[in-house]
Amino acid sequence: MAKTFGKTEKKQTPKTNAKQKAKYTPKKNNKNQKTTNKKAAPKTAKRTYKKSSAPKNTKPIKIIPLGGLDEIGKNITLYAYGDDMFLVDCGMSFPDEETPGIDIVIPDFTFVLENKDKIKGLVLTHGHEDHIGAIPYLLKNFNVPIYGTRLTLGLVEGKLKEHRLDSSAKLNVVKPGDIIKLGAFSVEFIHVNHSIPDAVAVAVRCPAGLIVQTGDFKIDATPIDDYVIDMARFAELGKEGVLALLSDSTNAERPGFTASERIVGESFANLFAKAGKHRIIVATFSSNIHRIQQIIDEAVRCGRKVAVSGRSMINVVNIAAELGYLNVYNNVLIDIDAIKKYNPEQLVIITTGSQGEPMSALHRIAAGEHRNVDIVPGDMIIISATPIPGNEKLVGKVINVLMKRGANVVYEKMYDVHVSGHACQDELKLMLSIIKPKYFIPVHGEQKHLVKHSALAQSVGVDDKNIIVATNGNVIELNNKGIKIAETVQAGRVLVDGLGVGDVGSIVLRDRIHLAEHGIIIIVLAMDAVSGEVVSGPDIVSRGFVYVKESEELMSEITELSCDILEKCYLSNIYDRNAIKGKLRDGVSRYLYEKTRRSPMILPIIMEV
Amino acid sequence: MAKTFGKTEKKQTPKTNAKQKAKYTPKKNNKNQKTTNKKAAPKTAKRTYKKSSAPKNTKPIKIIPLGGLDEIGKNITLYAYGDDMFLVDCGMSFPDEETPGIDIVIPDFTFVLENKDKIKGLVLTHGHEDHIGAIPYLLKNFNVPIYGTRLTLGLVEGKLKEHRLDSSAKLNVVKPGDIIKLGAFSVEFIHVNHSIPDAVAVAVRCPAGLIVQTGDFKIDATPIDDYVIDMARFAELGKEGVLALLSDSTNAERPGFTASERIVGESFANLFAKAGKHRIIVATFSSNIHRIQQIIDEAVRCGRKVAVSGRSMINVVNIAAELGYLNVYNNVLIDIDAIKKYNPEQLVIITTGSQGEPMSALHRIAAGEHRNVDIVPGDMIIISATPIPGNEKLVGKVINVLMKRGANVVYEKMYDVHVSGHACQDELKLMLSIIKPKYFIPVHGEQKHLVKHSALAQSVGVDDKNIIVATNGNVIELNNKGIKIAETVQAGRVLVDGLGVGDVGSIVLRDRIHLAEHGIIIIVLAMDAVSGEVVSGPDIVSRGFVYVKESEELMSEITELSCDILEKCYLSNIYDRNAIKGKLRDGVSRYLYEKTRRSPMILPIIMEV
Repeated sequence: MAKTFGKTEKKQTPKTNAKQKAKYTPKKNNKNQKTTNKKAAPKTAKRTYKKSSAPKNTKPIKIIPLGGLDEIGKNITLYAYGDDMFLVDCGMSFPDEETPGIDIVIPDFTFVLENKDKIKGLVLTHGHEDHIGAIPYLLKNFNVPIYGTRLTLGLVEGKLKEHRLDSSAKLNVVKPGDIIKLGAFSVEFIHVNHSIPDAVAVAVRCPAGLIVQTGDFKIDATPIDDYVIDMARFAELGKEGVLALLSDSTNAERPGFTASERIVGESFANLFAKAGKHRIIVATFSSNIHRIQQIIDEAVRCGRKVAVSGRSMINVVNIAAELGYLNVYNNVLIDIDAIKKYNPEQLVIITTGSQGEPMSALHRIAAGEHRNVDIVPGDMIIISATPIPGNEKLVGKVINVLMKRGANVVYEKMYDVHVSGHACQDELKLMLSIIKPKYFIPVHGEQKHLVKHSALAQSVGVDDKNIIVATNGNVIELNNKGIKIAETVQAGRVLVDGLGVGDVGSIVLRDRIHLAEHGIIIIVLAMDAVSGEVVSGPDIVSRGFVYVKESEELMSEITELSCDILEKCYLSNIYDRNAIKGKLRDGVSRYLYEKTRRSPMILPIIMEV
Repeated sequence: MAKTFGKTEKKQTPKTNAKQKAKYTPKKNNKNQKTTNKKAAPKTAKRTYKKSSAPKNTKPIKIIPLGGLDEIGKNITLYAYGDDMFLVDCGMSFPDEETPGIDIVIPDFTFVLENKDKIKGLVLTHGHEDHIGAIPYLLKNFNVPIYGTRLTLGLVEGKLKEHRLDSSAKLNVVKPGDIIKLGAFSVEFIHVNHSIPDAVAVAVRCPAGLIVQTGDFKIDATPIDDYVIDMARFAELGKEGVLALLSDSTNAERPGFTASERIVGESFANLFAKAGKHRIIVATFSSNIHRIQQIIDEAVRCGRKVAVSGRSMINVVNIAAELGYLNVYNNVLIDIDAIKKYNPEQLVIITTGSQGEPMSALHRIAAGEHRNVDIVPGDMIIISATPIPGNEKLVGKVINVLMKRGANVVYEKMYDVHVSGHACQDELKLMLSIIKPKYFIPVHGEQKHLVKHSALAQSVGVDDKNIIVATNGNVIELNNKGIKIAETVQAGRVLVDGLGVGDVGSIVLRDRIHLAEHGIIIIVLAMDAVSGEVVSGPDIVSRGFVYVKESEELMSEITELSCDILEKCYLSNIYDRNAIKGKLRDGVSRYLYEKTRRSPMILPIIMEV
C-alpha cells in the first residue's frame, strides 16, 4: 500500500497543537512517516481569507441527509451541486429491542450507489463508530476516496483490515486548515474539540454559497492536548457569510456549557489518592484517548502501572500510541497477563464495558469470568462514562454486581468522572451566533433534539422559516433565494446480522420478537401422500413455551386436540395441506390462549410419505 | 361481603387532614359507608407516649426481607418474634430484557406459605403495584388478613375483583395513628407523603424493641392535600428509642431535597396558559392522584373539560373519586367518546403511557391507533413523569413520533412537569437524624442505592457495624445486644406469564432469548421404524432466521448437508435417534456459523413410520 502523505496545502499549525506535540509526542513526525498511509490528496487550494460577496442567481446546492436524523448514529450526509457530489461521514448505529439478534445497523446505500459516478469523495469529521462504522460496507460496493485526519484514518484503517479492504482503500490524510477540491466543491477542515482527538468541522464551498457542518463538537477552553477549537476560523466564516449551518444536536436538551475534559483529570487525582492500597479499575470508551491519557498521567504520578483489557481498548491504545496521540511514557504500560506480579496499589487497569455491554471486559470482571482480573473487596472501580439512553439498566446491573462483590464503585452520579463530548445549549447558541447562518439545519439527533436545537436557533435570531427539521432522505435545496425540501430519495436502515447484510427484514424480526415472547409449538405429522391418512404423529415439540417435563398434561391435551382436528379434516374430505395446517394453527392457538393466555407461534409441519 | 368499618382506635385526626376533607371531599363520610368494606380490625391498643426504657436480654426479633433488596419492586418484608409473624407489603416488579414474554414478577412465597399458621396479618404501606401487586397471588394460597389505609385497600379491592378474590378477602381499614395488635407485635401507622395519597410508615413494637419501617416516603411541606408527613411522631419515636430503621433507598443517589408536588401545579398553570387555542394532553402515572387533582384544578380554572383515557387511569380515577380522594367538581369530567363535541381549547385529556408502554393510551395516540384521539399539529402534550430506568428509549421514541406529527411535546428535561415521590439524600439524612436508630437496614433499592443509603447513614453518625446491607432471604436477627444475619431462607422471583405462575423457568427463558437472537431451523424427516431408512425429507423449515424466499440457495445447502449427514449415519450403522439428531444439530450448526456467523436454534425432528 502506498504510504505517501496527502499533499494538502499547509496552513500554519496552531500554536497549541505544536505545544501538544512537544508534550506528548516527541517522535511524532518520524512515526507519521511509518504509520500513516495513503494516497496523495487531490488538487487543493489555498484558503481564501477575503470576504466573498454572496453569489447571486446560482443553481441551488442540494444537501441530502441519508442518516443521522431522528436517530442517534448512522450519520451520513450527501452534498450535490450539479453533477458533483460528495459524502460527509458514513456511520453505523446500534440495534435496540426492536431488532433482536442484529449486530449493527448501517445506512441504506441505494441512493449513494445509484450516483457513484458523481461522488468524488467521502469526507470524515472524526473516528467514532457513528461516523465511520459503515465505511467497510460502503467500500465493498464502491471504492470511494476517503479524506480524514490522521487519527481518524488510523481507526478507519484498523476497521478496513478486519474486512480485508485496507490494501485497496484510497485514504487521504488531511489536517485542520487544509482545503480539498471535490469537483465543484471545495472542503476546508476546521479543528473542533470532541471526546476523540483530531475531530474536524467542514466548510463546504460551491457556487451556491458556503455551508458549515460542525460534525460532533464541544467548546473546550482547556483540552488535554491544549488544542482549542478554532473559533477564530468559524468567526471568519461567519463574517464572510454562511448560507447554511448543519450542527450537532446531541446535547440540545442540556442547558449550559459542557465541562472541560480536564475536570475529569482532577477527579481522577482525588480518587486515585483515595484508593490507597487498593487496585484501581477504570472503565471508559476506548475512543476517548484524552481520557485514557489522563488515566495514564495520574497512574504515572502515583507510581502505578497500567494494564489494558478489552479488545477495542487494546486496539485503540495501540493505534493512538503508534500515531503519537497517546503518550505512553515511563514504561507505564504492562501486559494484562503480568498484573499478578504487582501489588494492588501498583496497578491501574483500563477496560472496556462502561456501557455494561454483556461481552465486555468489565462485564466479565463483574461476573467473575475474566481470565486475569478477579474482584477483591476494596477494589476501586471507576466507571468513567454516562449510560447511553437504553443502557441505563445494563450499567446499573454491572454496578450492583461489583458492589455485591465488595468493590468500591464510583460512577457518574457521585463524582465528576465523565464529561460529555457534545456541545450543550449555550455552546450551540454561541456557534450559531458566530456563524450567523442564513439557514439552519439541525443534524445528529433524535426528533426531540432537532426540535430543541431549532428552538435554540430561533432564540439567537434565526428566522423560523429559515430552519429545516428534515427527515433522512429529504433533498434540501438551497441557495441565497430560498430553502426547501424538493423531494425525498431512498434512505433508511440496513441490518447486519453476522455476515448477512440486509437479509434480515421486517418479517424475520417480527418472527424473532414473537418467538421471544412466547416461544414456538411445532405440530409434526406424517401423512400418506395418496390416501391422506395420518401414518405417524401428530407429535408436539415446543421451545420457549413451558418447561415440557412439568407440563406433560398440557402437551397431551394439545396432541389430543390436534388428533381431533386431523380426524375432522379427514372426515370432511379436507386434504389440502395448507387448509389442514390452517385448521391446526387456529385450533391449537385458540385453545392455548384460553387455557394459558399466551400466544406461542404455532408451526404445523406435514411430511408426505 | 361485610361492610363494617375497622374498629381501630382513633387518635385526633391531624388538622391538615381535616382541611383537606373540607376542601375536596364534603361527602366523604357518607361515601365511606358505602364504598369501603372490610372486617373489623383486631384488638387495638392506645398509643403510648411515655418513653419506654430499652428492653434488656430479650430474645431477638427477626426481620426477613423476602423481596425489595437489590431490586426496584417486589417489596415484601416478614417480621418474626417467637412464633408470631406478620408481613409488610406484597409487591410485584416488572420484567426486563432477560425475561422476555413475562407479564409480571412476584416474590417466591415458599417461606411465607411454610409459616402460614404463624402469620397474623399483612400490613400495607401504600397502594403502588410494587407494594400491593402480588397480593392476589398470595391470597390464592393463603387468605391472610390485610391491613391498610382506605385508598390502599380501595386499590387492592379493585385488583382482587379482577382475580375474583374480593368476596373472601379479609380487608381491614386503618388510619394514621391507629395501632393494631398482631400476636406479640403491635403496629402503629404514621402518615407520610408520597406520590400516592394515604401512604403510611409503620412503627413495629415487640418485646425486643421498636422498629420503624418508612415505606416509600418524601417530605413535602406543601402537599396537595395539605396533609404533611407526621415528622412530630417520628421525632417522638426517636426520643423513645428506636432499635432499627428500615428506610426507602430509591433516591439515595440524588442529592438535596425532592421538590414539592405543588411546583408541578405551577408548571401546569404556565403551560395551560401557553397552550392557548390548542388541545392539552397530559400523560402521567394513574396512581398519582394528587397530580391528577392538579390537572383537574387547572382545567377547571381554564374552563376546559377533562377526558380520561387508558384502562388503569379510568379505574384509579373512579376509585379515587368514589372514595373522596379526588375532587371532580363543576362537572369537569367528560367521556372520552364525547371529546368531538368540544373545541381543542375546551379540552384536557389525561392518559396513561408516561413510560412509553407499547399498549398504553399515549402510545396508541402517537401511533395514530387511538379510537378517539388523533394528533393535530399544535396539540400540547405534557409527559408528567420521569422514565423509570430501562424505559428511557421507549419514552424517547413516543416523544419523537408525537413531534414528527407536529405536536408540541413538553417533557421533564424542559420543564418542572414531574417531581419524585421519594426522599432524596437530605430527607433521608433528616429521617435518620430524627429517628436516631441503633441499627439501620436500607431497603427498597438496588445494591447501589442500598450502599449509598448506608453511606448517608454513616454520615449522620450511625456506626458502620450497625448497618446491614442485606440480601433477599436473609434472616436479620437483632435485639439491644446486637444485629446479625443468622441464616438465609428461600427467597427469589416467580415469573407470571399469562395465567401461568412459575411455569416459565430458566430453560424456557434461555430458549426464548436464543430464539430471539437468531431464530430456529427445524430439520424434519420420516424414518422407517424398522429399517432406519429415511422415507421422507429431510425438510427444512425456519422462522426468524433469514427471509426464506430470498435465501433459497442457503436452504437447499442445508438440505443437502442434512442428506449427507443422514447417509453417513446410515452407512455407519448409526440408528439411535438421539445420536442422529446430535449429528444433524452439530453439522448444520457448524456449517451455518461458518457461512453466516449466526447460531440459530437447530431442532431436528425424526418421525417414525
